[in-house]
Amino acid sequence: MSKLSTAARRLVLGRPFRSDKLGSTLLPKRIALPVFASDAISSVAYAPEEIFLVLSIAGLSAYVMTPWIGLAVAFVMIVVVASYRQNVTAYPSGGGDYEIATTNLGPTAGLTVASALLVDYVLTVAVSVSAAMSNIGSAAPFVAEHKVLVAVAAILLLMAINLRGVRESGIAFAIPTYAFIVGIFGMLGLGLFRIFVLGDEVRAESADFTMHADHGDVLGLALVFLVARAFSSGCAALTGVEAISNGVPAFRKPKSRNAATTLLMLGGISVALLMGIIVLAEKTGVQIVEHPATQLTGAPEDYRQKTLVAQLAQAVFGEFHLGFVAITVATALILILAANTAFNGFPVLGSVLAQDSYLPRQLHTRGDRLAFSNGILFLAMAAIVFVVMFDAEVTTLIQLYIVGVFVSFTLSQTGMIRHWSRLLRTESDPAARRAMIRSRLVNTVGLVCTASVLVVVLVTKFLAGAWIAILAMAVLFSLMKLIHRHYAAVAQELAEVEDGLHEVVLPSRNHAVVLVSKLHMPTLRALAYARATRPDILEAISVSVDDGETRALVHQWEDSDISVPLKVIASPYREITRPVLGYVKRITKESPRTVVTVFIPEYVVGHWWEHILHNQSALRLKTRLLFEPNVMVTSVPWQLHSSQRRKTLEPQPAPGDTRRGFVD
Amino acid sequence: MSKLSTAARRLVLGRPFRSDKLGSTLLPKRIALPVFASDAISSVAYAPEEIFLVLSIAGLSAYVMTPWIGLAVAFVMIVVVASYRQNVTAYPSGGGDYEIATTNLGPTAGLTVASALLVDYVLTVAVSVSAAMSNIGSAAPFVAEHKVLVAVAAILLLMAINLRGVRESGIAFAIPTYAFIVGIFGMLGLGLFRIFVLGDEVRAESADFTMHADHGDVLGLALVFLVARAFSSGCAALTGVEAISNGVPAFRKPKSRNAATTLLMLGGISVALLMGIIVLAEKTGVQIVEHPATQLTGAPEDYRQKTLVAQLAQAVFGEFHLGFVAITVATALILILAANTAFNGFPVLGSVLAQDSYLPRQLHTRGDRLAFSNGILFLAMAAIVFVVMFDAEVTTLIQLYIVGVFVSFTLSQTGMIRHWSRLLRTESDPAARRAMIRSRLVNTVGLVCTASVLVVVLVTKFLAGAWIAILAMAVLFSLMKLIHRHYAAVAQELAEVEDGLHEVVLPSRNHAVVLVSKLHMPTLRALAYARATRPDILEAISVSVDDGETRALVHQWEDSDISVPLKVIASPYREITRPVLGYVKRITKESPRTVVTVFIPEYVVGHWWEHILHNQSALRLKTRLLFEPNVMVTSVPWQLHSSQRRKTLEPQPAPGDTRRGFVD
Repeated sequence: MSKLSTAARRLVLGRPFRSDKLGSTLLPKRIALPVFASDAISSVAYAPEEIFLVLSIAGLSAYVMTPWIGLAVAFVMIVVVASYRQNVTAYPSGGGDYEIATTNLGPTAGLTVASALLVDYVLTVAVSVSAAMSNIGSAAPFVAEHKVLVAVAAILLLMAINLRGVRESGIAFAIPTYAFIVGIFGMLGLGLFRIFVLGDEVRAESADFTMHADHGDVLGLALVFLVARAFSSGCAALTGVEAISNGVPAFRKPKSRNAATTLLMLGGISVALLMGIIVLAEKTGVQIVEHPATQLTGAPEDYRQKTLVAQLAQAVFGEFHLGFVAITVATALILILAANTAFNGFPVLGSVLAQDSYLPRQLHTRGDRLAFSNGILFLAMAAIVFVVMFDAEVTTLIQLYIVGVFVSFTLSQTGMIRHWSRLLRTESDPAARRAMIRSRLVNTVGLVCTASVLVVVLVTKFLAGAWIAILAMAVLFSLMKLIHRHYAAVAQELAEVEDGLHEVVLPSRNHAVVLVSKLHMPTLRALAYARATRPDILEAISVSVDDGETRALVHQWEDSDISVPLKVIASPYREITRPVLGYVKRITKESPRTVVTVFIPEYVVGHWWEHILHNQSALRLKTRLLFEPNVMVTSVPWQLHSSQRRKTLEPQPAPGDTRRGFVD
Repeated sequence: MSKLSTAARRLVLGRPFRSDKLGSTLLPKRIALPVFASDAISSVAYAPEEIFLVLSIAGLSAYVMTPWIGLAVAFVMIVVVASYRQNVTAYPSGGGDYEIATTNLGPTAGLTVASALLVDYVLTVAVSVSAAMSNIGSAAPFVAEHKVLVAVAAILLLMAINLRGVRESGIAFAIPTYAFIVGIFGMLGLGLFRIFVLGDEVRAESADFTMHADHGDVLGLALVFLVARAFSSGCAALTGVEAISNGVPAFRKPKSRNAATTLLMLGGISVALLMGIIVLAEKTGVQIVEHPATQLTGAPEDYRQKTLVAQLAQAVFGEFHLGFVAITVATALILILAANTAFNGFPVLGSVLAQDSYLPRQLHTRGDRLAFSNGILFLAMAAIVFVVMFDAEVTTLIQLYIVGVFVSFTLSQTGMIRHWSRLLRTESDPAARRAMIRSRLVNTVGLVCTASVLVVVLVTKFLAGAWIAILAMAVLFSLMKLIHRHYAAVAQELAEVEDGLHEVVLPSRNHAVVLVSKLHMPTLRALAYARATRPDILEAISVSVDDGETRALVHQWEDSDISVPLKVIASPYREITRPVLGYVKRITKESPRTVVTVFIPEYVVGHWWEHILHNQSALRLKTRLLFEPNVMVTSVPWQLHSSQRRKTLEPQPAPGDTRRGFVD
């Protein structure tokens, strides 16, 4: 091993590994929290509201359940956070749930987690942007009226920003996240202070309406089902908790400990915000229903239901309208930021999957803007489809959302239990064993908890939309499986010939053919370069698509002092590819051990539209020639002036740089 | 000259010029007529109807004008046919109006004609398909109800057929055209026989309704304007007449004479059909109005106005329903065929424009399915835009249609007058001079006539839609001008260095670099081929994106008996392009007269989706390396099994083959 690494080091060229330099750009906890937790924290903007909304089906009396459901969600949150603290310690490499499932449960489990996460990223964008628009819509009626349109525009904007590649900075993440945390805590503090200390009557605008149960009396099993469904929706607050486990490498040292601490902070903040909002909502008498027009009487004609957060802000700040606007804006901003984290996380996960041959390989190498761009386009388009399909309604979209999250949670906890059991088999130090057994216990509680939630979610939401998410997961799973199989087949094909490894014979002859259309500098350069490769035979060929032009070329050639012979190939149908191909085939057929090198002069241009105007015939010919055995194709470039503008290849920022510790 | 041609011939390789074989596939007149005239003949299916429709604005009394307007259109038709008989004799090369305008009036006039023709092709598709759907709709109410949808579907079908590439046959053109000609003549004959010989009362279904003028009394200038507009719409019968002048090379010898004769046949048939339809319409009392619901009383509640041809067929065949259906189907078929000729003519014109550097060069070479496909896609999409925009209403689309036709007619006649005048300046033989003066007179009458119609069309239709066509022409004109300017600039750039023509120095050294990712057969082949080019320096380089993989590679390399040294390039950011580029740059900087050849092993695959999974990094690297001076890029292909399915490169039929004399 050490012999190998020195051998490799001896040969290493180019710029040194930048690990030192990278170190200085790693994230302190105060920046890591907003970078990784905006998704999780932002979900308290809609999770409590969904609990109220589901319960409203059974009427106002069911609202008495909300604190208990809130506590149940908070309990699950605490258990999940505790479990993930084990995860980040055991798997600090940033592979997250995918790595844990793959390592401990095998590739099928890993791929299931990956499919779930990919679908989740799409839904994170759809849900977060829709929720953001609901909040802005609470302050700006125009947005509420054209919610779908504005949501689509917002997704397109995020897409454009990420396609363009913005150099990420921790500050850009920190401001909206801390503004939201401070804003909501401030609102809760002020509200509870006014109610309990000043004894003010703080009432929400919807407090005095009369609520009608949507389905009359809900009793017995139906009520249990409803409460379970409210709990499921409330569990949306847990989405995004796993993000930190994918970002451990970006933390400052000690990485795992800092990540675990950040997780704890995230959990604490989320639980406090969640419970605070529920309590304040109870005290201010907010009524949130699914169909305000039919379920609420006493509401004005043009009543438009505001979000829970907006109603609380309105009630707490009262005449101080700026407070209401600030809360609304901060909420919308953190939600947009959460959507943006999906644009960051998606390519990072894609890169990991590409390394394992589940996605096209080029996704693995960084700085591949084209591959990244395709991922971003896919994410944006898929999110837009969901937003349009479900009218940007958070309540509907959330039915699809959490199934993926809990599939991932459950498999990862199962994997962790296996992990600890495996370690315990060989560990003999009693202290280490005790720690492992404790960790395994935590993960077991986590598994029981997340698996139960998964079952509840499946039962209560399958028909309401979760089946769509599951279907999408299945499609992605199959697609990645097929890609993996293809790469394996190719590797197998290359391994088959491995036996003949040392039988590659040196070709006996190198026959160079230079393709000529006109006699100008690019052609002369191609001839000179071809001659520099000292081929056994060197000739120029020209395909005659225009009789007059060909004659002029032959004339010019004979008048010049070029010693290379020019052959003209007839092309009655004005084709280029086929006649050249036929000529090359004849050479390789006559002498099978000859390798033919076809030199193609190529114009190098600087604008994409110039590509349409040049080289198309050459490109097609090149593609076709590659199918012939014993043929090499050499491009001899001629740089046109316009190519200068493309000469500089600046390193461009890639989405997700911050999460991987690449920040300036 | 003869020295050159023998020099060229001496060098000619490959299959012999197929001119002999082509001769046997040239078109006899009976096939040339349907191939080139379906567009022109099919327009009598809608032109007379439009005359009635426009006049209906002034009420039934205005119908008395129709025979006179018909005669005026017939007169213009005869003049135009006579003029084009001069054109095909003087310019038998198939360049048509574009060539005549370019040669005699300069490139700007030529480009104007080209823009007009390109727009016309789009409108031919839109108008013909819409008219076809109106006719089918007269027999099948479902089609009438979903006209736009069915029209779009028909365009997509035509697009698919032409993208697929169907081997064209004269028969496919002949059947619908002759069926239409025979069918309409039969209908006219039977109708007039019943009326004038048997004395039957042959009445159209709309004959007994009461027509209300749309705008009350139309008098004075307004009436003149209306009649002029009806005449303009009737001139739609002339669209497509110019097609034969683009197809002279496909005729049998004597080409020009046969083309002229075919033109005469086309003119005779069109005039006879046009006048016959107008007379029969008068006799059967057909009433065609723009808004049947408001303009016709006495019509049943659910009255849906049939096309003029359908109403005539219904009246003439009466109870013999099959006759009505046959006429409707034949009319729809020839109209679809006319739309299809646009799909044929568009790439042919594109090829001519490409030769003159107004469109991307690759359009000039035949068998370029990609370029052809783009043209077909563009044509179909543009036609769909027009169909959707104008609800597949022939009456509205026709407002845009004929302005382009008459721009082309007028410029071509002007060019012909110049042509004869130029010839007359040098011709001294009195007989030849007389013939030329006569030809010039014909073209002068043609110019006066078509220019007048153009003015009438512009005055009566500009605001009604012609401005859209003119705008589209202007956009195409500018675009092609820009493309031409770009090619000229590149030619200029290459000419600038022409002085240094013989100064291309042989590179002093050839430094070969083989790119290695793994040690397998493709790599070994690349090494063997690279060695066959006997470079001065040969080395292998590998970019380290994954530490473990790199170590394994180095280990394997050291264990093998490969004598080529392997260098590893560090890539801290997991990039490939930049590190390789930096390495190559360093070589060329150190020794500027060295040419670097980068050998890239490439996988050759058989499915498009495999391309996504392979070679993407190589492709990007290749593209980027071309921007470096003194660098050649050589692809060393490795054919995977799947590439076998792409090995055969069958000659594929191209749209427009028949018009260029390529038929089996």
